[in-house]
Amino acid sequence: MTSADSASRRRVVIIGAGFGGLSAAKALAGTSFDVTVIDRHNYHLFQPLLYQVATAGLSPSDIASPIRSIVRDEENISVVLANVSGIDVARHEVLAEGRRIGFDHLIIATGAQHAYFGHDEWAAHAPGLKTIDDATYLRRRILLAFEKAETETDPDERRRLLNFVVVGGGPTGVEMAGAIAELAKRALAKDFRAIDPRAARVILVEAGPRLLTPFDPSLSDAAKRSLEQLGVEVRLRAGVTNCDERGVSIGSERIESRTVMWAAGVMASPAGQWLGAETDRAGRVKVGPDLSVPGHPDIFVIGDAALALGADGQPLPGIAPVAKQQGWYVAALIKARSRGETPPPFRYRDYGILATIGRKRAVMQAGRLKLRGFIAWVIWCVAHIYFLIGFRNRLAVALNWVWNYVTFQRGTRLITGISGSRVEDMPMPVDAPAADKRPMRGAA
Amino acid sequence: MTSADSASRRRVVIIGAGFGGLSAAKALAGTSFDVTVIDRHNYHLFQPLLYQVATAGLSPSDIASPIRSIVRDEENISVVLANVSGIDVARHEVLAEGRRIGFDHLIIATGAQHAYFGHDEWAAHAPGLKTIDDATYLRRRILLAFEKAETETDPDERRRLLNFVVVGGGPTGVEMAGAIAELAKRALAKDFRAIDPRAARVILVEAGPRLLTPFDPSLSDAAKRSLEQLGVEVRLRAGVTNCDERGVSIGSERIESRTVMWAAGVMASPAGQWLGAETDRAGRVKVGPDLSVPGHPDIFVIGDAALALGADGQPLPGIAPVAKQQGWYVAALIKARSRGETPPPFRYRDYGILATIGRKRAVMQAGRLKLRGFIAWVIWCVAHIYFLIGFRNRLAVALNWVWNYVTFQRGTRLITGISGSRVEDMPMPVDAPAADKRPMRGAA
Repeated sequence: MTSADSASRRRVVIIGAGFGGLSAAKALAGTSFDVTVIDRHNYHLFQPLLYQVATAGLSPSDIASPIRSIVRDEENISVVLANVSGIDVARHEVLAEGRRIGFDHLIIATGAQHAYFGHDEWAAHAPGLKTIDDATYLRRRILLAFEKAETETDPDERRRLLNFVVVGGGPTGVEMAGAIAELAKRALAKDFRAIDPRAARVILVEAGPRLLTPFDPSLSDAAKRSLEQLGVEVRLRAGVTNCDERGVSIGSERIESRTVMWAAGVMASPAGQWLGAETDRAGRVKVGPDLSVPGHPDIFVIGDAALALGADGQPLPGIAPVAKQQGWYVAALIKARSRGETPPPFRYRDYGILATIGRKRAVMQAGRLKLRGFIAWVIWCVAHIYFLIGFRNRLAVALNWVWNYVTFQRGTRLITGISGSRVEDMPMPVDAPAADKRPMRGAA
Repeated sequence: MTSADSASRRRVVIIGAGFGGLSAAKALAGTSFDVTVIDRHNYHLFQPLLYQVATAGLSPSDIASPIRSIVRDEENISVVLANVSGIDVARHEVLAEGRRIGFDHLIIATGAQHAYFGHDEWAAHAPGLKTIDDATYLRRRILLAFEKAETETDPDERRRLLNFVVVGGGPTGVEMAGAIAELAKRALAKDFRAIDPRAARVILVEAGPRLLTPFDPSLSDAAKRSLEQLGVEVRLRAGVTNCDERGVSIGSERIESRTVMWAAGVMASPAGQWLGAETDRAGRVKVGPDLSVPGHPDIFVIGDAALALGADGQPLPGIAPVAKQQGWYVAALIKARSRGETPPPFRYRDYGILATIGRKRAVMQAGRLKLRGFIAWVIWCVAHIYFLIGFRNRLAVALNWVWNYVTFQRGTRLITGISGSRVEDMPMPVDAPAADKRPMRGAA
């Protein structure tokens, strides 16, 4: 992008290369717009499979592709690896690591991160799952718990090490609980001498009355039964009231555990604070029917960072298909406007929702169609492999799954970033939420 | 291993699950010995391919397997994940994270780490390559250098970012230099807009008069020519006299670089200090013809940690085949002694040495046979895939190589452990040599 170009061509800046940002970028490939994609990581992450990295089923590179590779042939798209710290709305500039990146149109697709509802001190004891580093950190924690239990002589501590608590009964929590149970009861079953990994307890704790709230109650019940068949203990109407390094409290009840995983809530990125725009309690920016920020027709917020309303007046869910369709929509809108046209408002097309529970089990809902069990699991596998970006990743994931399915093994059981068994030496992921929650307002 | 067992069965403790330690353990599988393998990592690492992880060609899980998986079916072998801090020779106990692990026979296979010849302060500026964490750290450094160059406006700093210096012309240095050149000139060639990665300089610096000293001079010359065809600048008789965050000095000459990699020397693990045994300058424990430590017939040192002499009276090289054969030998010796036999001294069988330079190029020497070019490269590929432990890894590596070969792509170009582009925020690997170089003498 030379200065001669930028003088003559309209500049679109996209913050975030998740499902929303990347679909917008690809829809603008080959146009006359100068597109800049800014992300704080050099890879696009297929987040729906992140729990598989955390439970040693897949490698990080199976579900992540370098952003530069994805857009390498699109000469009008450049990629900047940087942390965005603010937006100068008046001057139409994004602030990123000391640089100012000017835009004519801005698409904010910065996603969400896990949130602790005012209890940020729980973050150290109950890590969440949003990035590759979160996933390898959780993988270390889970695998080290078994290693420490193997040499632990105090029976109370050993029990604590073999208790795994997952907080939150949404898709991520359900998938994590099922995967940890399979890891303990299958992949690790014969690997230890002093402990029996099959004796590990996996406890899924949900504050609400059922799992997988977006699904039909009959599928929530099916998911609960499937988890219980895998050996997971499901606790409904169980709100966590405290969380420390030795477990969680649910009111007066105490569950001892050295490995607590947080999948209970998300908070949108600080985009609302960057813009000084109105947000809901989860930090999502309220956007208009064309996904622009009220009063800023050239600034759009999409995906998990946005609060957009569906045809029924309800907020659209924070899932990949919504983000992707919004990315396509905003790209089309920007192109249409440059031709002087005004397209209709964004409308989400719901092709259904899917959640997996473990080997051979899933639930699926599309309109009136409700599926569960093996057939839903096959659809889940096909859909996820199909949507993984890049032929190589699809092939690698398919091979890994076939391998894991046939052998019950997990090939990526590596404890990295640490030597020996001292959990205390483990560094937390650098993207831990606390650091990200201090957004800088764009300089005036 | 219950106490009833250990009273009746002889205990073999193996420190280190590298090539030497693991081959000893496997040779003792199914015997009446109680075998305990202690390692500070939970995985066995196929170190000869570590440079491929550092240059984004392979994933960590492609070249590492959990030790527990490898020996899961051997009921007389248990695995302990722990840092060893010393050996109580008098009481026949290994000290590991507060525990005392008793032995009747001890096999020390703790390997070597990179060494800076009295300049430990260079470690921060010129990281080495011995562990998975070293490799992912180097991968981050290399990939981030290109990312920073893309947005850098100062031409001097940009040049410094696109200079890559590899110190040391042994196999690791040659392989790294070739792989970085291929990464820059092929895989990344089209991925940037402001810089041309093909303009990156890769400089291989060797203090001695030729590359790959263990090989015949004609093969050293062939390796040099191959590297130069790849675009690597080879500097012989160039001893590094200083190293800081902006480059290296060779006497009065200065090479500016933000990415310096150290492959110039190794230092054996602190086993000699644990034992109070005689070592050479590189810290290797001098062992007898049966690989036992003089005065301690039940304590053996093998692999890179040992100084063993070949039939020609010269020290055996620090390579995987030596370590493996020594592991088999010591296991056989322990078994023979338990039957009252005394086997002949250890004798190394040399099947040849191999080093690769890049896509389609390698050198190989076996006795009088000297090979170079494509045929040596094919042999190198087959040998390395064959020796990779575990069918799954072999298949994954083969597929990755086919993929990289056909497409020139690198699928694992992930910058993890950091967000944004600030190299200063990068944590050094936890196993950095400085921490390991303070061995504790076994308590009396």
